[in-house]
Amino acid sequence: MNAISRPPADLPAALVAALSALLGERFSRRSADLEQHGRGESYHPTCPPQAVCRATATEEVARIVTLCAAHRVPVIPFGAGTSLEGHVLAVAGGISLDLSGMNRIVAVRPGDLDATVEAGVTRQQLNAWLRDQGLFFPVDPGAECTLGGMAATRASGTNAVRYGTMRENVIALTAVMADGSVIRTGSRARKSSAGYDLTRLLVGSEGTLGIITEVTLRLYGVPEAVSAAICHFPDVASAVATVTDIVQAGNPVARAEMLDDMTMRAINRYSKTAMAEAPTLFLEFHGSAAGVEEQAALAQEIADGHGGTGFERATGHEALNRLWHARHNVHYAVLGLSPGRKLWSTDVCVPLSQLTELVRWADRERADLPVMTSMVGHVGDGNFHMGLLIHPDDPAELGVAEAFNERLVERAIALEGTCTGEHGVGTGKRKFLVKEHGAALAPMRAIKAALDPLGILNPGKVLPD
Amino acid sequence: MNAISRPPADLPAALVAALSALLGERFSRRSADLEQHGRGESYHPTCPPQAVCRATATEEVARIVTLCAAHRVPVIPFGAGTSLEGHVLAVAGGISLDLSGMNRIVAVRPGDLDATVEAGVTRQQLNAWLRDQGLFFPVDPGAECTLGGMAATRASGTNAVRYGTMRENVIALTAVMADGSVIRTGSRARKSSAGYDLTRLLVGSEGTLGIITEVTLRLYGVPEAVSAAICHFPDVASAVATVTDIVQAGNPVARAEMLDDMTMRAINRYSKTAMAEAPTLFLEFHGSAAGVEEQAALAQEIADGHGGTGFERATGHEALNRLWHARHNVHYAVLGLSPGRKLWSTDVCVPLSQLTELVRWADRERADLPVMTSMVGHVGDGNFHMGLLIHPDDPAELGVAEAFNERLVERAIALEGTCTGEHGVGTGKRKFLVKEHGAALAPMRAIKAALDPLGILNPGKVLPD
Repeated sequence: MNAISRPPADLPAALVAALSALLGERFSRRSADLEQHGRGESYHPTCPPQAVCRATATEEVARIVTLCAAHRVPVIPFGAGTSLEGHVLAVAGGISLDLSGMNRIVAVRPGDLDATVEAGVTRQQLNAWLRDQGLFFPVDPGAECTLGGMAATRASGTNAVRYGTMRENVIALTAVMADGSVIRTGSRARKSSAGYDLTRLLVGSEGTLGIITEVTLRLYGVPEAVSAAICHFPDVASAVATVTDIVQAGNPVARAEMLDDMTMRAINRYSKTAMAEAPTLFLEFHGSAAGVEEQAALAQEIADGHGGTGFERATGHEALNRLWHARHNVHYAVLGLSPGRKLWSTDVCVPLSQLTELVRWADRERADLPVMTSMVGHVGDGNFHMGLLIHPDDPAELGVAEAFNERLVERAIALEGTCTGEHGVGTGKRKFLVKEHGAALAPMRAIKAALDPLGILNPGKVLPD
Repeated sequence: MNAISRPPADLPAALVAALSALLGERFSRRSADLEQHGRGESYHPTCPPQAVCRATATEEVARIVTLCAAHRVPVIPFGAGTSLEGHVLAVAGGISLDLSGMNRIVAVRPGDLDATVEAGVTRQQLNAWLRDQGLFFPVDPGAECTLGGMAATRASGTNAVRYGTMRENVIALTAVMADGSVIRTGSRARKSSAGYDLTRLLVGSEGTLGIITEVTLRLYGVPEAVSAAICHFPDVASAVATVTDIVQAGNPVARAEMLDDMTMRAINRYSKTAMAEAPTLFLEFHGSAAGVEEQAALAQEIADGHGGTGFERATGHEALNRLWHARHNVHYAVLGLSPGRKLWSTDVCVPLSQLTELVRWADRERADLPVMTSMVGHVGDGNFHMGLLIHPDDPAELGVAEAFNERLVERAIALEGTCTGEHGVGTGKRKFLVKEHGAALAPMRAIKAALDPLGILNPGKVLPD
């Protein structure tokens, strides 16, 4: 899937000299650096770049891109390396442009409920900074990822059901385009009808249309009250049906996470907890003290109707932290079930009304798979992940994962859903875009050709060949 | 501003024959039809198309565009003709493609909180249809406009402070591209990371990148309780400061409209009401019965602090309808103050923290203008309109409006705002995009050239020459 048609030529000596002169120690061809920049956190085999450039400012990114453009050398943006779909693999060679050093919080404006940060700032770093000001940034994919990377992959996570994804929460961007020009998209006004929405075009473009160097984000006031609840179910479908009913009832639930018995077992082992090892919902409610009570009572009533048991409230900072810390570590916890194996994560998302049926189907089908599987879901959004534990070097296990994912994606697209709710396309899901977008692939290709005529920006990603 | 470099050649006879054969009576060159399709509702002089094509289906739109492309004839989409920025003017000749006959509600899916409608469906038509199902579509620009037109101009209106604009509420689109191909953008999943966001690119593109023929929209449950309030202030700045404080306090107000004394006078006269003719706020709250009470109490407290007087609650369907009916008719009410004159409406939008100062400045400056002015604002979004009543044929009055708007826009852009919050660019605001977007205009132009290489889609709109 990551086949390189031909091995990339050596980097031109003139480019190496120019980048070394520009960056000094921040230009590297050490093999450990190359290795680390050639992989994400999933099953995709490592595919290292030919050099790593560590940038510290937008103007520097512009100079690097200009140099690479002059030599027709690919540029692959790199943040925290938490990609799950091969976004950072150097499938056509080129340089990895590491933005993690661009980690300044440029401005926080409480009166406008927005903040501007450099692309390398992580969401934890921003939220730690905001804590004293009664503000927070809600988009939370779990991993310790950068906000630039989250924008580039249109990430979401546990809070999206209430607060939306990066699509809704990125107000404006600074980006370096393929010709080295620096643009600023959007303004800080809450709305605008002034021209084409380049912000939303760059969000989710995975570094293939421009390199995001700065993002302006929407912030929210920390709610007056936050409480969580946990509840167990006889099967995953009942847990899912509970959440779709909660959302359809207009309950503004802030998080609604489904975890199957396998995942609960993994969490107990990894996080030293002792929760029931059954299909489970983690719920969180935000609002006024009274509002949170109302929401939790309604959720409990709906859960009861679907056979939920052991509905238990968690309030207080510590209880909440424990719960979401456990949820955030699911990826690593599940990996711990079978050391040495990697995780192939599916990521379909379907209209809410179709979710329970699809999860029921997937739950039945996985019983026949010859590999271990876990299932977690941002089910309030219609999005769930099956984690297949495989040896990527074993063609049989890889084939099992590929074939299962293909069947799942086909079903999701037939239900008017998508092959990827939040992980992005990368190298891993390019082929599904043909079925998902049909004729709409042509304007996507036209846009790519218009904005990156030399094809130097993260080649081999997003669009199928 | 709407200068045509040269008068358009007559429509090719072969095109006329083909369109007549395709559309029969729905192809028209009657002067009344041309006249009606060559104007919006503002000061822009009428600029009629050379023919009107009334389409009834996406496939028909595709055939019309294919025929026009073959003859290099411009195509200008037309909905309800409520444009305020010259979007429908045939500045380079061509045909007006009237989509108002495409007014089928294709599907309403309560379980997914979405609906699919043809582009010619109006928001009132959709909401009338939804009423029995406990659902509504919130975006409300006031005018009786089509949902296709609202998507094309990225419209918003009174509810945006709570529910967002067309940017947030269009899930997916069907569009006909410049080569006659039909694409479907997005899916019905609530989120997706699968490829470039063509939905958001087409929303707000004003018919210059593709012709929207169908839209899938997000719906909301009718809130358990709705109540409104009205409150008067010593000056417009105090009214605005009240709203920015309400929003900054995290109060999820559903509408927050400021109207100046002149507008209140116009409303009283037009709608036969007897409200105080002072700067006024119309507020609306959505939520549970208790939540609505909480919100209103907080709003009243903040209003009191800014010198608000006569805070009065309005509950019950009839009182609410009366209030918002009066607000919706402001455009026509203000026109009634000086019969024969037209309205030049400004539309700047700035970060919330800058709004009170900018409104204060505008309020001072307008005292010196030799024309009547009104002021209304969706102030929870940072957006306000000054209505200047002018004779567009009088160069002196036109010059006054142009010069004032230019100064206002320059200030707004300097405050990191935008020249247009919701009316769109059309022909009227193209020149401001240079200052507002700077280097980001280049990728916009590249996208336009890539998706409409012949330049037949609504030429002379959005992008400056």
